[in-house]
Amino acid sequence: MPETRARVAILMGSDSDWPTMRAAAEALDEFDVPHTADVVSAHRMPEAMVAYGREAHTRGIEVIIAGAGGAAHLPGMLAALTPLPVVGVPVPLKHLDGMDSLLSIVQMPSGVPVATVSIGGARNAGLLAVRILAAGDPELTRRVLEFQDELRRVAEAKGARVRSGE
Amino acid sequence: MPETRARVAILMGSDSDWPTMRAAAEALDEFDVPHTADVVSAHRMPEAMVAYGREAHTRGIEVIIAGAGGAAHLPGMLAALTPLPVVGVPVPLKHLDGMDSLLSIVQMPSGVPVATVSIGGARNAGLLAVRILAAGDPELTRRVLEFQDELRRVAEAKGARVRSGE
Amino acid sequence: MPETRARVAILMGSDSDWPTMRAAAEALDEFDVPHTADVVSAHRMPEAMVAYGREAHTRGIEVIIAGAGGAAHLPGMLAALTPLPVVGVPVPLKHLDGMDSLLSIVQMPSGVPVATVSIGGARNAGLLAVRILAAGDPELTRRVLEFQDELRRVAEAKGARVRSGE
Amino acid sequence: MPETRARVAILMGSDSDWPTMRAAAEALDEFDVPHTADVVSAHRMPEAMVAYGREAHTRGIEVIIAGAGGAAHLPGMLAALTPLPVVGVPVPLKHLDGMDSLLSIVQMPSGVPVATVSIGGARNAGLLAVRILAAGDPELTRRVLEFQDELRRVAEAKGARVRSGE
Amino acid sequence: MPETRARVAILMGSDSDWPTMRAAAEALDEFDVPHTADVVSAHRMPEAMVAYGREAHTRGIEVIIAGAGGAAHLPGMLAALTPLPVVGVPVPLKHLDGMDSLLSIVQMPSGVPVATVSIGGARNAGLLAVRILAAGDPELTRRVLEFQDELRRVAEAKGARVRSGE
Amino acid sequence: MPETRARVAILMGSDSDWPTMRAAAEALDEFDVPHTADVVSAHRMPEAMVAYGREAHTRGIEVIIAGAGGAAHLPGMLAALTPLPVVGVPVPLKHLDGMDSLLSIVQMPSGVPVATVSIGGARNAGLLAVRILAAGDPELTRRVLEFQDELRRVAEAKGARVRSGE
Amino acid sequence: MPETRARVAILMGSDSDWPTMRAAAEALDEFDVPHTADVVSAHRMPEAMVAYGREAHTRGIEVIIAGAGGAAHLPGMLAALTPLPVVGVPVPLKHLDGMDSLLSIVQMPSGVPVATVSIGGARNAGLLAVRILAAGDPELTRRVLEFQDELRRVAEAKGARVRSGE
Amino acid sequence: MPETRARVAILMGSDSDWPTMRAAAEALDEFDVPHTADVVSAHRMPEAMVAYGREAHTRGIEVIIAGAGGAAHLPGMLAALTPLPVVGVPVPLKHLDGMDSLLSIVQMPSGVPVATVSIGGARNAGLLAVRILAAGDPELTRRVLEFQDELRRVAEAKGARVRSGE
Repeated sequence: MPETRARVAILMGSDSDWPTMRAAAEALDEFDVPHTADVVSAHRMPEAMVAYGREAHTRGIEVIIAGAGGAAHLPGMLAALTPLPVVGVPVPLKHLDGMDSLLSIVQMPSGVPVATVSIGGARNAGLLAVRILAAGDPELTRRVLEFQDELRRVAEAKGARVRSGE
Repeated sequence: MPETRARVAILMGSDSDWPTMRAAAEALDEFDVPHTADVVSAHRMPEAMVAYGREAHTRGIEVIIAGAGGAAHLPGMLAALTPLPVVGVPVPLKHLDGMDSLLSIVQMPSGVPVATVSIGGARNAGLLAVRILAAGDPELTRRVLEFQDELRRVAEAKGARVRSGE
Repeated sequence: MPETRARVAILMGSDSDWPTMRAAAEALDEFDVPHTADVVSAHRMPEAMVAYGREAHTRGIEVIIAGAGGAAHLPGMLAALTPLPVVGVPVPLKHLDGMDSLLSIVQMPSGVPVATVSIGGARNAGLLAVRILAAGDPELTRRVLEFQDELRRVAEAKGARVRSGE
Repeated sequence: MPETRARVAILMGSDSDWPTMRAAAEALDEFDVPHTADVVSAHRMPEAMVAYGREAHTRGIEVIIAGAGGAAHLPGMLAALTPLPVVGVPVPLKHLDGMDSLLSIVQMPSGVPVATVSIGGARNAGLLAVRILAAGDPELTRRVLEFQDELRRVAEAKGARVRSGE
Repeated sequence: MPETRARVAILMGSDSDWPTMRAAAEALDEFDVPHTADVVSAHRMPEAMVAYGREAHTRGIEVIIAGAGGAAHLPGMLAALTPLPVVGVPVPLKHLDGMDSLLSIVQMPSGVPVATVSIGGARNAGLLAVRILAAGDPELTRRVLEFQDELRRVAEAKGARVRSGE
Repeated sequence: MPETRARVAILMGSDSDWPTMRAAAEALDEFDVPHTADVVSAHRMPEAMVAYGREAHTRGIEVIIAGAGGAAHLPGMLAALTPLPVVGVPVPLKHLDGMDSLLSIVQMPSGVPVATVSIGGARNAGLLAVRILAAGDPELTRRVLEFQDELRRVAEAKGARVRSGE
Repeated sequence: MPETRARVAILMGSDSDWPTMRAAAEALDEFDVPHTADVVSAHRMPEAMVAYGREAHTRGIEVIIAGAGGAAHLPGMLAALTPLPVVGVPVPLKHLDGMDSLLSIVQMPSGVPVATVSIGGARNAGLLAVRILAAGDPELTRRVLEFQDELRRVAEAKGARVRSGE
Repeated sequence: MPETRARVAILMGSDSDWPTMRAAAEALDEFDVPHTADVVSAHRMPEAMVAYGREAHTRGIEVIIAGAGGAAHLPGMLAALTPLPVVGVPVPLKHLDGMDSLLSIVQMPSGVPVATVSIGGARNAGLLAVRILAAGDPELTRRVLEFQDELRRVAEAKGARVRSGE
């Protein structure tokens, strides 16, 4: 992602979250939205996280996607630090199937919202970032509409397979 | 909210959700973001919901906030119908403390994201809509930053009260 | 299922639900109840879902079986669209073991019932459809009674195996 | 409900369930579906329950609605005894908010389906029974369609109130 | 188990529960308590279950152990039918990790107790039956005390291994 | 309960559990089973608990009923100390509705069973103790049968009220 | 708490947590452990939180007690910032009964421990801080032992009341 | 661990917990904190547990780490017996993913705190013990600070890998 200024930052607490979070990058790629990815651990590099959160909007980032698991503090802490919309991805860990991650991300106190997607739902986080960017962008809106149309076509084709498979 | 074109639509399945959802409208008012509110029930007026979802972005709406409880289908259905970002508010009902509402809203399938906030978190839904609109708007970004500064001042004042109260 | 008019429609949001939902078709086959299966995604083809739901009873369908997982909206949306009884099958996905699917299907608001069966219980959905059709049909009732008798005989045989296996 | 033969039986384990289950009777009344109600406790009068379950379809009953709470065995036991469709209502008790009732009713083994509605959802149980009876009855189907239309009108009126209330 | 009259009956709804329930039989064997095992399905052979429950105490059975999974009705129904103590074993099925089984067994209404052991805890069900029989039997009490002493010795030996393994 | 030797001990961690546990004493009184009640806190008087557990069977106690809430250790610790059957009552505390109490009591390791009853189910704990004592006592068995017959009569009377109340 | 240098800091995200957290201060008072209390919100004053966390151990603080509710990030963030032991108190909020608070605090990633106490358990947080300080302090250890002895005496007195109350 | 007096005791109910608990020992080794490990089963050797708990602080132990699963009573019982801080590790067993272990350990009654770490979080238990010992030890505090610095460096290196991996 060399030259273009990134519009979306994909952050995670550890590179072990990358296999989950990669799907956010892929969704952004499908819409040609420039993005960057980094490890910004709330628990292991808090000052760097604070700096990242405070400065992101000054560097051209428009949406932050943050994934974390267990006692998942990164999305909420970033939402406290940035004026940007923060999309939170609950990463499922070894125990509790992501329920701890989900509650740690979604149950934010009044004043500090996190836009939470499903457990492991990094692809949807990317698509949500696209919709957010599309809000004031007719061309990107058109591509979201096309994407939805393609979803429909694929689903219809699946129906044909189920019907013929009987 | 007479003349101004609404930029955010606050939708709910029933007027019994209004006491919860009103806080979204109040948050938008604090930022002078024009908005509209309506009952659009997925289960009681599905065609109207489809029409609303399909047309919202053509009428100037930029963000949809949708609240629902129990088997809460409105936010996800709207997300399927509109290219706009949809913020979902899990409304707690009489039983299960909003856990059913939360899971029905947040666990959306790949391709159709809903930006879910906390159980009963309509105020945060409004604030998230403000952040989404602020993404490309330096003036609104400035006001979000001011708002965060005010949150800090209030919290600091609370600290003074706790310290002196000992 | 060429000539005969289908009396039961087995619908699902994606062909990935078919390995679960197939058991509904098999149960209907055991009772020679003609049926059809299709992918009708609430989130990917909402207009087609509305059309399907509004028209099903005019095309001779008497019971709809709908399976979905996660934020499972298909059964409830169909129940909002059709006057027919809708049987909902919570399909378990990768996380949460189907608990999200169950709550999204069973916790419907007043006025719009879904007849929910167990997590992954597509066979029981088929058998429930048979019972519904049997309500006004002495011959089908007789076959349900025979089926129950056969369940008993099989259970008795299992008892014999456990007793002799000691 | 003197002369008319009851088509739906509303059964419960104790008269303490009646305040919840009464809503099923009221829904049936709205559609002029004759019904009867009784206490048939799985745990306190098992032989009577067996007799009731075995004979119900011979006495003209076409649908059984059964409500129970906690370790809620009545709906499933009746489903084992009758060829009729059984609608189960999870009655919430003092602890666990009806989650125990829900799981005890919905998680039936293969072969013995219970059509489960929401926690405390007795009104929906009545409406589901109406839909089941309407399956082969054009006049009752027409009334279900009218009922759905009325749901829509009421929801639309609520929308008007929310809009004017801003 | 040829000649001796069985004092404990181990019952289950299906022979698929036997791999779990076998551990109850083994525990009883360790204490030379004669026992029998059978499939008595609440949902597939309800009359046989009623007969078994009503007669067990007249045939010399002193404790009933019943295992079931999902909407697990067998232990509670037997407790309704017999004056004997009934020990319930929640058998974990494919989904929900036995939580549905546990709640369906333990949350019995007032008047009809089931002595519930842990999820999958058939061995403990056998040991509980031994303790119940030992209540009025000094020799069996002595053997329970010996068994507890042996548990202690084994745990002490494990400690030695952990200490030396450092 | 002055002269008679107690056959059942009702133990609890604090007198705040007595309003829940009293129902066990009342059930035993209905069957004229002599009993004693005491506070034996696992966490506040562990040596006394050990002594009580080790000696109970030598003092004529035949069944121990133990109630506790939250991290409820008393029933399991007593089961480790006594050869007697221990009946555990999960007492619901201010949070979590007794789910923590239930899991802390029922999920005992292999070798040390606790006969767990429902959350707050102290009356059933008393009735379970009666059944355990009745195992080798025809007269007490007769009274349990009478009690079950009375449960049936009361349930039948409730049915009459529901029927006439329509 | 004027002159003495505080050894324990009691921190919370909002003064609305003070009614819960006050019990920690009271426990420390009972042991004459000097302490301070303050509002240090992770989400509303993150830089102040970072500064507080980084400096606490240089100002003589030896233990930090932190309470928070919902998506409760304060205890874990402080644990990331300080070398001191951090005791976390899950504060129950309006929904979910503190389960979200508990999981957000206790499920910390490897490397950053939080010593979590029970939901609402601020008194125990204070007592845990006392034990931590007592580890190298024979006099404070003696007082903990006395405290435990007093717990025993109170429990014994409760037992006397239950026994005489029969 | 020959000559040095152990400062931390790592206790568990069975050697089957050792694969989980070993990580606590390894963390202590990294900080050169002498420790000992032993099997002290609450349920299988209660008197030895009482003795261990009562004497640990007289033998130079300063922190106890206790791991247990299911109805996990060891940490809480030890906390009742010792004036030392007790760190509890919820060990996940075959069912319920450690939720039962967590609640059995963390939900302790007022007066008897357990410092609970995450499910399976034995490494964090070791690190928490290090922090507790470091409270009055500048050299150990320095090493905790170094450890946190190293966590940061490793996280930064992970970020570099994610960035270059794009």
